[in-house]
Amino acid sequence: MAEFSKGLAGIVAGQTSVAIIDEEGGGLQYRGYPLNQLTEKATFEDVAYLLLHGELPNAAELKAYRASLKAKRDLPSALKEALERIPASAHPMDVMRTGCSMLGCLEPEGADRDQGAIADRLVGCFGSMILYWHHVAVGGTKADVTVDSEDTLAGHFLHLLHGEAPLDEHRKALDISFILYAEHEFNASTFTARTITSTLSDFYSAVTGAIGALRGPLHGGANEAAMALIERFGTADEAEKGILESLKKKDKIMGFGHRVYKVRDPRSDIIKVWAEKLASGSDEGKRQFEVAERIEQVMRREKDLFPNLDFYSAIVYNRCGIPTPLFTPLFVMSRVTGWAAHIMEQRADNRIIRPTSEYAGPAVRDVPALDQR
Amino acid sequence: MAEFSKGLAGIVAGQTSVAIIDEEGGGLQYRGYPLNQLTEKATFEDVAYLLLHGELPNAAELKAYRASLKAKRDLPSALKEALERIPASAHPMDVMRTGCSMLGCLEPEGADRDQGAIADRLVGCFGSMILYWHHVAVGGTKADVTVDSEDTLAGHFLHLLHGEAPLDEHRKALDISFILYAEHEFNASTFTARTITSTLSDFYSAVTGAIGALRGPLHGGANEAAMALIERFGTADEAEKGILESLKKKDKIMGFGHRVYKVRDPRSDIIKVWAEKLASGSDEGKRQFEVAERIEQVMRREKDLFPNLDFYSAIVYNRCGIPTPLFTPLFVMSRVTGWAAHIMEQRADNRIIRPTSEYAGPAVRDVPALDQR
Repeated sequence: MAEFSKGLAGIVAGQTSVAIIDEEGGGLQYRGYPLNQLTEKATFEDVAYLLLHGELPNAAELKAYRASLKAKRDLPSALKEALERIPASAHPMDVMRTGCSMLGCLEPEGADRDQGAIADRLVGCFGSMILYWHHVAVGGTKADVTVDSEDTLAGHFLHLLHGEAPLDEHRKALDISFILYAEHEFNASTFTARTITSTLSDFYSAVTGAIGALRGPLHGGANEAAMALIERFGTADEAEKGILESLKKKDKIMGFGHRVYKVRDPRSDIIKVWAEKLASGSDEGKRQFEVAERIEQVMRREKDLFPNLDFYSAIVYNRCGIPTPLFTPLFVMSRVTGWAAHIMEQRADNRIIRPTSEYAGPAVRDVPALDQR
Repeated sequence: MAEFSKGLAGIVAGQTSVAIIDEEGGGLQYRGYPLNQLTEKATFEDVAYLLLHGELPNAAELKAYRASLKAKRDLPSALKEALERIPASAHPMDVMRTGCSMLGCLEPEGADRDQGAIADRLVGCFGSMILYWHHVAVGGTKADVTVDSEDTLAGHFLHLLHGEAPLDEHRKALDISFILYAEHEFNASTFTARTITSTLSDFYSAVTGAIGALRGPLHGGANEAAMALIERFGTADEAEKGILESLKKKDKIMGFGHRVYKVRDPRSDIIKVWAEKLASGSDEGKRQFEVAERIEQVMRREKDLFPNLDFYSAIVYNRCGIPTPLFTPLFVMSRVTGWAAHIMEQRADNRIIRPTSEYAGPAVRDVPALDQR
């Protein structure tokens, strides 16, 4: 039997210049910039530009980029009509996956639409896509998705969701979470995008596949599972009791540990500050935060596990009034920038990604005729 | 610098019992059965059942399975309405990708619909999906996609495409090609499906992503490229001249060579017999076959390369009157059986597929303030 690493754990599948997970050094870096500095000195649009173009924008470039994204918020009518036909019971990630694929039918990649234009289009319109469907499915209203008064993606999403201008600290917290979710090297969805790209397929196919991978609870779906966990408990003591019981039953606790990080997830420390800040504004928030902190303590004490980005992000999103089923679509809105950077990088030096397998099936055998089976 | 295998060439990414590519032994085997015996003693429905259930069906099981697939041909009205909104200019693989994803919104996986039911549904309705769109987009007609007079997938596709019962030898040739395309171990689209599955995402996400991967010309798209190549030449001598010129310019010739096969593609020998048989019925067919054989000779002589399955399949499909843009969707209709088997296998013993990368980007650097960039 040949030896292999299950799940390709620790196997180098390629080179990248987009990000490095430098656990002992400066932490996670996007194109060399430490993530903690980016969340202090930049906005999500700076980071999206950085990932797509390799360098941070200057003031003029940032202004032009924001204007360009703003102009890409509206959706083609055929896409709206398709979204109107998806029932309210659908999983929002299925809506994102279908909307992205449909847009690829309507605005295909080609001579007059290159990969950079498509990346900007998807960054600009993913928020519109999920919320157009959300408003139709939940409220029966065909919303105007442009929201001209908002200049940033975070502001656009919150304003369009709630139908009114959001609080500045909500805009800021969502923006920070977008920065943290934007890119993470060869994670499962990015690796999916690169594998699809490696057959020389189109940009939308790669992003559509990546959305499908992100949907899973072992990947992007974890932030929704974390919220469900926190909401199970009314007090910190109840949480302690419940988690101990779950651990005894060997249930998987979502939002903890990570394939790549061994000691801590540096993104968690940053989002936890924002979770606490937003939670402090109400009794319900304070209770959620106390429950979450106790779960963190128990998991550290009992399992030596640390919270990953998904855990406290859940509280941030909940405090911004975002329904839990929309959490993973928010992850898509951010991570599409990383996917796009990896798609472009894969194309620039491509070889088809086609591993091999170890056979564990029946030995060679003759096919019996139908009447002898 | 760490060493790695670009494109994961030769890297074992997991175990499988579905198929083995045994180049020195019995050739390609599906669950132990050599492919050349399956094409002689079985139909595509036998093979689909074998891949999904692990064993060949007996006569009663085969009859029930065919009836079950037949009952799954019709499409939900919301899906038809979405397909009606995809323009005639769209790439048919984008239509397949979108239709599969939309079906996942309408008939989601869950307590009342398990993976086996979804696999059967997709095998049963993919032909309806692409041809419903095809007839609307090309002819403006909303076709009845059920075609009750046809019991097999191959017959259903050809009858629905042409609006009349096909020739028996066309049914048979298409059926053989479906058997040959059904499964091929850890190819790029199957590996995509397994990677998406590994996050515990749903069945439709995995298949949708696999369609996106198959779309690329280095994978499923090759059969369309092969047809375009064959159609470029009016005679065998023109083909020889043209191919030599292309080789001199280092153009990639589609339909030749393979990552896994080093000496020959055993599937090509089987489909070539059918290409010749169908081609012998007309002058145009004879010319196509002569051109194709000459291209094969030149590629062997000049590059020591052999035709893969895609090359002569192109002639079979063309002789069945199938428009070239529908060739890769036919590949989907067959390969979805292999994808489904691999999705089930991945789920049965899962670990998230998450490789790592070698960093080749900028060294760590400080983030400048916006006014200092």
